[in-house]
Amino acid sequence: MKELIYHRHFLPAIDRFSSRTLVVDGDYRATFRDHGERVLRCASALRRALGIGRRDRFAVMAANSHEYLELYHAAYLGCGIINPLNLRLAGKELDYIVRDSGTEVAFVDRHFAAAFDQAMRAAGKSPIRRTVLLGEGGADLPHDLRYEDLLAAAEPEIPAEPEEEDAVVLMYTGGTTGLPKGVLVSQRAEMLNWYHLAMVFPIGEEQVFLMPTPIFHAASMIPILALPALGGTVVLAPRFDPAETLELVERHRVTRISLVPTMLAMMLNHPGFRPERLRSLDSLVYGASPMPEALLTRLMALYPDLELGQGYGMTESSSILTLLSPADHRRGGKLLRSVGRALPGIVLSIQDEDGILLPSGETGEVCARGGNYMDEYWRKADATAEAFRGGWYHSGDAGYLDEEGYLYLVDRVKDMIVTGGENVYSIEVENAISTHAAVAQVAVIGIPHEVWGEAVHAVVVLRAGATVTEEEIIAHARASVGGYKAPKSVEFRDQPLPLSGAMKVLKRELREPHWRGRTRRVN
Amino acid sequence: MKELIYHRHFLPAIDRFSSRTLVVDGDYRATFRDHGERVLRCASALRRALGIGRRDRFAVMAANSHEYLELYHAAYLGCGIINPLNLRLAGKELDYIVRDSGTEVAFVDRHFAAAFDQAMRAAGKSPIRRTVLLGEGGADLPHDLRYEDLLAAAEPEIPAEPEEEDAVVLMYTGGTTGLPKGVLVSQRAEMLNWYHLAMVFPIGEEQVFLMPTPIFHAASMIPILALPALGGTVVLAPRFDPAETLELVERHRVTRISLVPTMLAMMLNHPGFRPERLRSLDSLVYGASPMPEALLTRLMALYPDLELGQGYGMTESSSILTLLSPADHRRGGKLLRSVGRALPGIVLSIQDEDGILLPSGETGEVCARGGNYMDEYWRKADATAEAFRGGWYHSGDAGYLDEEGYLYLVDRVKDMIVTGGENVYSIEVENAISTHAAVAQVAVIGIPHEVWGEAVHAVVVLRAGATVTEEEIIAHARASVGGYKAPKSVEFRDQPLPLSGAMKVLKRELREPHWRGRTRRVN
Repeated sequence: MKELIYHRHFLPAIDRFSSRTLVVDGDYRATFRDHGERVLRCASALRRALGIGRRDRFAVMAANSHEYLELYHAAYLGCGIINPLNLRLAGKELDYIVRDSGTEVAFVDRHFAAAFDQAMRAAGKSPIRRTVLLGEGGADLPHDLRYEDLLAAAEPEIPAEPEEEDAVVLMYTGGTTGLPKGVLVSQRAEMLNWYHLAMVFPIGEEQVFLMPTPIFHAASMIPILALPALGGTVVLAPRFDPAETLELVERHRVTRISLVPTMLAMMLNHPGFRPERLRSLDSLVYGASPMPEALLTRLMALYPDLELGQGYGMTESSSILTLLSPADHRRGGKLLRSVGRALPGIVLSIQDEDGILLPSGETGEVCARGGNYMDEYWRKADATAEAFRGGWYHSGDAGYLDEEGYLYLVDRVKDMIVTGGENVYSIEVENAISTHAAVAQVAVIGIPHEVWGEAVHAVVVLRAGATVTEEEIIAHARASVGGYKAPKSVEFRDQPLPLSGAMKVLKRELREPHWRGRTRRVN
Repeated sequence: MKELIYHRHFLPAIDRFSSRTLVVDGDYRATFRDHGERVLRCASALRRALGIGRRDRFAVMAANSHEYLELYHAAYLGCGIINPLNLRLAGKELDYIVRDSGTEVAFVDRHFAAAFDQAMRAAGKSPIRRTVLLGEGGADLPHDLRYEDLLAAAEPEIPAEPEEEDAVVLMYTGGTTGLPKGVLVSQRAEMLNWYHLAMVFPIGEEQVFLMPTPIFHAASMIPILALPALGGTVVLAPRFDPAETLELVERHRVTRISLVPTMLAMMLNHPGFRPERLRSLDSLVYGASPMPEALLTRLMALYPDLELGQGYGMTESSSILTLLSPADHRRGGKLLRSVGRALPGIVLSIQDEDGILLPSGETGEVCARGGNYMDEYWRKADATAEAFRGGWYHSGDAGYLDEEGYLYLVDRVKDMIVTGGENVYSIEVENAISTHAAVAQVAVIGIPHEVWGEAVHAVVVLRAGATVTEEEIIAHARASVGGYKAPKSVEFRDQPLPLSGAMKVLKRELREPHWRGRTRRVN
């Protein structure tokens, strides 16, 4: 039986857990039964009122909300392909994505309705046939229909089952260079992505899960797929704010949180932080960008019983490939610099430029295979073939595997700094600087240098009230990394580092003033 | 990517865990590396020396051993379809299975070589082209080749990858009536069977797992698939013996054991049992037949921290459908009479004779669907279509689901006793009798009765030194079940109850003397 579809999980869970709380979103709360009914109304509205067929795309441009979760679930029940838009995209990018994907129906919330409409009209006639406004209020905002009206008019109805090979998500990747590419993922791949993780990092019905990261990311599988199937509770936050996140954990007795290291740093460094405010947490999952060792050490000292998991993956793998498990964190030592081992169902390899598999200990491109990979870059056969050459997905990340199969990322290939012919992996330098007591955040980039091509440059945000000189930072770095890796210059900032929609430090923006008018060679 | 094949798990694990112990079998121990090398030699021998192609069947008739595990792993790497023979079959059944499956190569050990040979020759020319003898010694036993010679002559070689739809196991079901049927299971179904369980009952690298049940059963997925992929250790025992099992747990610091309730009763009632001998266990999985409540209560009182899991499934589902989880056991109460809830990926329904889905609380036939189901009964299209009518596998078991989705088996439909027009489910009566302090084992059957058609009859094995009368047992039962359910007669036995190859009480044998010369109506 080909049963890798969300139908098999979602519908029985609605019955089984009917009176439990599934979603908390501000003052809104829904039980499994109520959420299920709204999803079946939404599914009916998508098909009947909006004419969305099984393979039609619809876009969502909205902050995290219960409506967003409903739209995801309707797509997973087989009512079209959801195209979750990154909220930090420029108008031109949005226009490109909507046209490239052939999206004609969009759901927007009050925060993004105006910007979306403007982006769609900028290049002439809007490609959008229907814009549906989510939530209350906003009568003055551009829209054709209201989501609540559609739901009120629809009869709850269980959609026909999709096939496991049917696409369910079309998610565009940032693409630091060139145009964004649509990552088309099937039901089957999404189910396996979840299964792979759950086999080694239990996800269960007792969990109250807080998602302060945007659910337009691939990494949102736990709240979107796993917990609604298993009986857990999902607490949604429309945006990340450190004070508000502390407040939500405390108020809802959150047991698991998933975040990026930058968020964690902002929470632990917040004036309102007190250790007891996060006591309800029994597990914390982080990923998407490297965790500074000093931050991790501090977290583990504060919460010795907290089960920590680090994930590594990408949109193309519908998200996760490796896990640094709670047991790995307890072993500590050099493992804390690893992103963990391949999940069951994933095989990793390290390859050189010719596709030769390298032995353990040697650095090359991180490649992977697994049932969780996308079907294709949307209508880009060449880019798809290139990404999967030799049967392996090529990540563009540089790393090595140790003898036990732990993966160490040395750097994004394109983030590597080449100085005087030596390769410098910025994470190493960032780790060295982050252990300085005065440092709250640090990013290391390459800036142009007449002699070495690139020079190592650090951008540092200090903790409130702390002071330190450029020379002290450089000396502190030299104490733990080789001289050529230590920064040649340090820049201090008052503001937090700029973040991408995925909450990664936007090194591109940090580099931009230094490289204006020049071309940086990218490996 | 279609990656649901064991290749993706086994080969990376051999590298990753190379120097750890994977198999313990008496005095034999093998690391992951050594076991892996033997499997690759075995795979090569199967293909090159024995001419077994990807879809050819080979049979194994042997007690649990490391060689048996190697043969399983070679099949999972894509070198033929393994046909594990039940060791309790009569010669005529063996002959039927070997001919029905078209098996031409058989692996036998010294315990079964003579009986197998005799069975093959009984009906004339043996269908077996090559008989390979496993293990040391036995030069006088009938065989063509020796396994160790084949391995010594083979070069370790990684076989070409199978497809996930390729069949890997052909396992004949007992079939209490009629001829045995071959259950043909694919790589994909076996992987999902494991994934489903692991998502809610973690299986991991720290586990030392003891398998006292025969690995010719579908329920052997944890030692055959999961632990060799995840870095655990498998302790094999050639046969079940309560004293020896206690000894193995103690000697190897076993952390998880999987057994049937009868075995547990024999261990806890053994004169050599002392609670501290099983202290290393952190989890215990049971299934295949109902657990008497008194036994379960005793186990939980002895080991309050033991994580208990009960599974329910069948060969056709490549084994497991439901789990009564450790948390469910801790909740206790009526849940202890349930076999738990559907695993993720499984959907259960209760159907009446017309295939109508019944609401919760109503008893009917237990039906299920999931990606772990067999492809077919080997070359029996009609029986396959009958089993899967309406898209659901029909188990032949009677049961109901409660409102939270917990499954309660009231009885095997065919084990139900019909007395005076009332249905009596024997498990209820067995539970009632098992709480009597003098009772070690009990089985309840229907025996012919002139007035009621069938009368309820109990077969009881007393604890060492205990005495009790028939009247006392009947009165004890009446205290907790309705009068028509209480036994009309009780038979005391000195010997343990007869067990099937699957370690289920062979009620057929208990019934036989009562029904000789009569026909029992089976629903």
